[in-house]
Amino acid sequence: MQATNGTLSELGERPLISRIRRQTAGGGDVVTGIGDDCAVVRLTPDAAEDLVLKSDPVICGHHFLPDADPRLVGRKALGRVLSDIASMGAAPRWILVDLVAPGDTAVRDIDAAYAGMSALAREHGCAIIGGDTCRGEILEYHVFGCGTLPRGTARLRSGARPGDALRVTGRLGGSLLSGSHLSFAPRVREGQWLRDWANAMIDISDGLASELWHLARESQAALVLDPGRVPLTSSAAATGDPLRHALFDGEDFELLFTVPPDREPGFDSAWQAAFPELPCTRIGEVVRAGEADVRFADGTPLAQGGFDHFVSPVEPT
Amino acid sequence: MQATNGTLSELGERPLISRIRRQTAGGGDVVTGIGDDCAVVRLTPDAAEDLVLKSDPVICGHHFLPDADPRLVGRKALGRVLSDIASMGAAPRWILVDLVAPGDTAVRDIDAAYAGMSALAREHGCAIIGGDTCRGEILEYHVFGCGTLPRGTARLRSGARPGDALRVTGRLGGSLLSGSHLSFAPRVREGQWLRDWANAMIDISDGLASELWHLARESQAALVLDPGRVPLTSSAAATGDPLRHALFDGEDFELLFTVPPDREPGFDSAWQAAFPELPCTRIGEVVRAGEADVRFADGTPLAQGGFDHFVSPVEPT
Repeated sequence: MQATNGTLSELGERPLISRIRRQTAGGGDVVTGIGDDCAVVRLTPDAAEDLVLKSDPVICGHHFLPDADPRLVGRKALGRVLSDIASMGAAPRWILVDLVAPGDTAVRDIDAAYAGMSALAREHGCAIIGGDTCRGEILEYHVFGCGTLPRGTARLRSGARPGDALRVTGRLGGSLLSGSHLSFAPRVREGQWLRDWANAMIDISDGLASELWHLARESQAALVLDPGRVPLTSSAAATGDPLRHALFDGEDFELLFTVPPDREPGFDSAWQAAFPELPCTRIGEVVRAGEADVRFADGTPLAQGGFDHFVSPVEPT
Repeated sequence: MQATNGTLSELGERPLISRIRRQTAGGGDVVTGIGDDCAVVRLTPDAAEDLVLKSDPVICGHHFLPDADPRLVGRKALGRVLSDIASMGAAPRWILVDLVAPGDTAVRDIDAAYAGMSALAREHGCAIIGGDTCRGEILEYHVFGCGTLPRGTARLRSGARPGDALRVTGRLGGSLLSGSHLSFAPRVREGQWLRDWANAMIDISDGLASELWHLARESQAALVLDPGRVPLTSSAAATGDPLRHALFDGEDFELLFTVPPDREPGFDSAWQAAFPELPCTRIGEVVRAGEADVRFADGTPLAQGGFDHFVSPVEPT
């Protein structure tokens, strides 16, 4: 590991994660380590199911404001992890929660947060089965999730292939304006259904632009985005620059995935039969392998953008 | 759930965990939920191995001081979770780490902390395979560990039976005075070995007194402690009241377990053959079932003591 005298703010989040990734190589039972939405591991060499593992913090002042409804804060804390598990195509099973809280936190607020988590857990057939509690200066929930799926079927960021269609569930942008960053529905059933259709999949937590770049880098592929087809929420559409919101806001928690050409013909009708209430839109395609690149249809490069926890100004995202 | 208008400081940590436990019942695939060192789950009804899951925070100002060696801080963060996995008799397999850090944290300190974690992980055959990073006001590591053991063999707090001997590994007390709270060796090999000998097992994180009470409550059993047999560290022995340090200091990360009468005769020689460098001491016995109680051999009740994160003064423990 190269020596450095800098700080985390100077380094930034993605280089930090790369440093951690270099230092923490996995073993033979690790199918996918650091660099995807979840890690994928195999309990025994002949196991019929793989496990996906994910941790994610939700911190007051970063992910929610002090006056947010505590029930929705709990819901969001679990929902973020469920969204990551969904993006692998897995079913969530077991959840642990580390609570950090100031001593003067109201017990009823903590009760409400766990009620919000428990309700969402029940909705998706998983259970909160452990965790820890500790006093701290700022209210934080650290949620650890464990999901399962048939061996070898996890959908990764690295699976995009030339010719694949780029698709997204739902509508994008304005999650902070509308409050949907607290009340979103993680696409758990959709993610499992998409296991049979998608080559690559990722959830949209840092904004469409950032996630397209993740797909491009991990797949070593060039992507082309048709900006006119990006599905917008009404709250994004009400702003002066809805596309910018859809590309860079983050916290939409929709799924971005690629469908290979031989699966495209039947896709729309199968999707509508399975999820009649939820749009699913083709927004572009994978055009070339060998080098990471993301451009608009007119050839303009797409900025890598997105939120960096160590470099961006502190605000709820 | 009963309504309350109080704060976490007024409620205290154990009642808080009881409230969370009531609100978050597990499903049929949960073998052991909240209330033990780890949760125990079963991937499929016919799985040959069970999974143990644990999360634990290590927070600057609570678990270590700002001038602590970052490599040892990382070692401690992982070591605490390995100790909990060991106390179930399981082998640690996969680790996730949530890092929360101020933007002005030195990159070399984070590198050192992950190097400390990675070295300890390699020593025990497990791998750091994921996690997340977020900016925050105070440096924190939230470690999530996943271990495995043969189906149905997890050693629980609830397994103590009348007639069992109470035993501890190593020596107790003075972990803060000696610095061993940062540099302890989690008893991972010992815990797996003890799976074949112990009825109940727990690691000593909050102090011997607190852990004896956990065993008594979860097993609904009365325990008798012989204070003259409690093995003391040299740093505890150098204080004016070494037994108080052994009972209430915490962070010894030794194992406390019970051995049934039919296994006691061969225990000492088998232990010495397996772990010639590490003492293992009989410190009392389980005398009665039906009600939780812990007393000294002369009949004096043992105070429940131990550190409460929400009620005790804030200091590294």
